[in-house]
Amino acid sequence: MANQESAYIIAPQPERAGLTRRVEGLAHDGTRQLINVVEERPLTIYLNSREIVTAMTIGDYPDYLALGFLRNQGMLSASDVVTGIDYDEELAVVVVRTKVETDHEEKLAKKTRTSGCAVGTVFGDMMEGLEDLSLPRTQIRTSDIYALSARINRTPSLYLHAGAIHGTVLCEGARPLVYMEDVGRHNAVDKVAGWMASEQVSGADKLLYTTGRLTSEMVIKTALMGIPALVSRSGFTAWGVEIARQVGLTLIGRMRGQRFICLSGEDRLIYDADLARVSDEPKSARRKSAR
Amino acid sequence: MANQESAYIIAPQPERAGLTRRVEGLAHDGTRQLINVVEERPLTIYLNSREIVTAMTIGDYPDYLALGFLRNQGMLSASDVVTGIDYDEELAVVVVRTKVETDHEEKLAKKTRTSGCAVGTVFGDMMEGLEDLSLPRTQIRTSDIYALSARINRTPSLYLHAGAIHGTVLCEGARPLVYMEDVGRHNAVDKVAGWMASEQVSGADKLLYTTGRLTSEMVIKTALMGIPALVSRSGFTAWGVEIARQVGLTLIGRMRGQRFICLSGEDRLIYDADLARVSDEPKSARRKSAR
Repeated sequence: MANQESAYIIAPQPERAGLTRRVEGLAHDGTRQLINVVEERPLTIYLNSREIVTAMTIGDYPDYLALGFLRNQGMLSASDVVTGIDYDEELAVVVVRTKVETDHEEKLAKKTRTSGCAVGTVFGDMMEGLEDLSLPRTQIRTSDIYALSARINRTPSLYLHAGAIHGTVLCEGARPLVYMEDVGRHNAVDKVAGWMASEQVSGADKLLYTTGRLTSEMVIKTALMGIPALVSRSGFTAWGVEIARQVGLTLIGRMRGQRFICLSGEDRLIYDADLARVSDEPKSARRKSAR
Repeated sequence: MANQESAYIIAPQPERAGLTRRVEGLAHDGTRQLINVVEERPLTIYLNSREIVTAMTIGDYPDYLALGFLRNQGMLSASDVVTGIDYDEELAVVVVRTKVETDHEEKLAKKTRTSGCAVGTVFGDMMEGLEDLSLPRTQIRTSDIYALSARINRTPSLYLHAGAIHGTVLCEGARPLVYMEDVGRHNAVDKVAGWMASEQVSGADKLLYTTGRLTSEMVIKTALMGIPALVSRSGFTAWGVEIARQVGLTLIGRMRGQRFICLSGEDRLIYDADLARVSDEPKSARRKSAR
């Protein structure tokens, strides 16, 4: 078991100092109780001299978060040479430096001036990268996704330790490789993207598992990371499904115990699991009821 | 029962056209299944001639969403006279017009020019409104919150119909008044705020129930709405707890069946419920396991 856990390249660190805090409160029966609560702190991301965004994060991988965010927003491309990532814990600032000022930076500056805020723009930029995207025809075995789901839900995590946090796991076959967690909705997936960019890992033979809902933004990010499949315990939005179908991404949701439903890219699925052998989840491993 | 349901001023509309869609997929047992999926569409909010943000929303109350968002961000104050809210469904744009250009607009323009993106700034603006805030000493009966929780979880909703959606409910005593749902993380609470601003309803004697996590942003929004208590099935972040303690807001989380824990403002609580009479949740009413 210990051996199996060590197979993670990056696993959650539920006991790491600074990620959770003991807080005292008054329980339903009037007793005083101490519970674990996750930290949440602002982190401001710069691309060279330009302030891009302030994200709320647990703060464990500021460098991967910054790099992954900029890549997933299309503000940094694979061809941009990153010369350094500087993190200042006291100022809560992380600066990603590139060899030459990127044209994305210039584009952002222009759009910001005309539109007042970059949020809408940022979303548009993300969509832009999808047009000429082609995801590989990698096969996905149902036996692998059952094994992944069982393993991930039993892995010691900040979620099991303190709750109120989302997880995203980069997987290959039946093996979870990098398991990131964060309070911020999309930070967990951005941290995985940052790790991939930093280690120059391809998404082509991977699968992404998330505890969150399958919204348009989650689907877009997964596609931009070059990963052909996204699996979740939670449900779908209609636009998430539509985009997945457009880009040919395999989208599997509401996965609990034996159950799941695939709403896009079903041609990648190989039904090799013996359902009689897939047990229902133990109560202790239950997360969100993934309607 | 029908009578009780009609007591909502605004209740969820799970059957309303345009909010969900039937989508076909391939299930775990290889059968084709049709499931309900929530819609998710962009809505761009303008304050007079200035584009502020593009939100992802189910699109049911664009006017309340725009008004509530601007109020909760501190871009519109109670003293600003709103002369109209125009919604263009085709353009997916909603424009909030005020009698005179607000100084928040001017402030936003200035900050946007210096910082590149308004996201961090927007958060700063929200915090600004908290300094001289004083929440009323309203009492909160545990019998009321048990009654609210049971009632809300059994109310027909988009969540029960299609999943993948958050709910926020404005309550008074044991009565839920306005139950908003949305795919966007904070849209549900902004729509409640917009309804309150539009109907000039005070938050002083109210309680806010949310299905989402108790993060800093949720706590700040609730406090800015003048509501002294926030209750959730889900868990806490440390900064959410800290801000709640600073502003004296009652924060109750992990509420399921008999259980809950109060991490701030416990002096408002009156333990009047007979726990022996509070039943555990029926399985059908279970939502997220609120660790």
